[in-house]
Amino acid sequence: MKAKVTVTLKREVLDPQGEAIRHGLQALGLQGVRSVRVGKVIELELDDHVGDPKALLATAADKLLANLVMEDFVVELLDAPKGTPAP
Amino acid sequence: MKAKVTVTLKREVLDPQGEAIRHGLQALGLQGVRSVRVGKVIELELDDHVGDPKALLATAADKLLANLVMEDFVVELLDAPKGTPAP
Repeated sequence: MKAKVTVTLKREVLDPQGEAIRHGLQALGLQGVRSVRVGKVIELELDDHVGDPKALLATAADKLLANLVMEDFVVELLDAPKGTPAP
Repeated sequence: MKAKVTVTLKREVLDPQGEAIRHGLQALGLQGVRSVRVGKVIELELDDHVGDPKALLATAADKLLANLVMEDFVVELLDAPKGTPAP
């Protein structure tokens, strides 16, 4: 089963990396970019027998992948195994 | 107009950061994660008058955001402005 956790900075946190990218795009002559923010995307391949993959990934994000003081995360399951019984 | 560029390592490129996360999850007792790969997500806010935002973002990814030797990128437009004439 494939899954994706996207970790982004909270809106109120400054993003100097994004700002550097915005300046870089301007320097390259690419006009029209108002703001840029950079996050991480973590793609995971899970065993099909994992009981509650969303809960597993939320725990993973909470404990390891994201810093909840300054980051938010979103968990997405990209393909569920066939014939999984409803929890 | 909001857009997103996702930059991921090509399949054949080793991902030590992803491997470290996999080990970390195991060490935390979170079982069932087979593999982990880490990429970047760049969220951009574009001016509505940009003529061809997909082309702008593909150029941005090509020239600045991604290293095409070892990375792939995907461009997504999250919301198009209303009433934009077809190109």
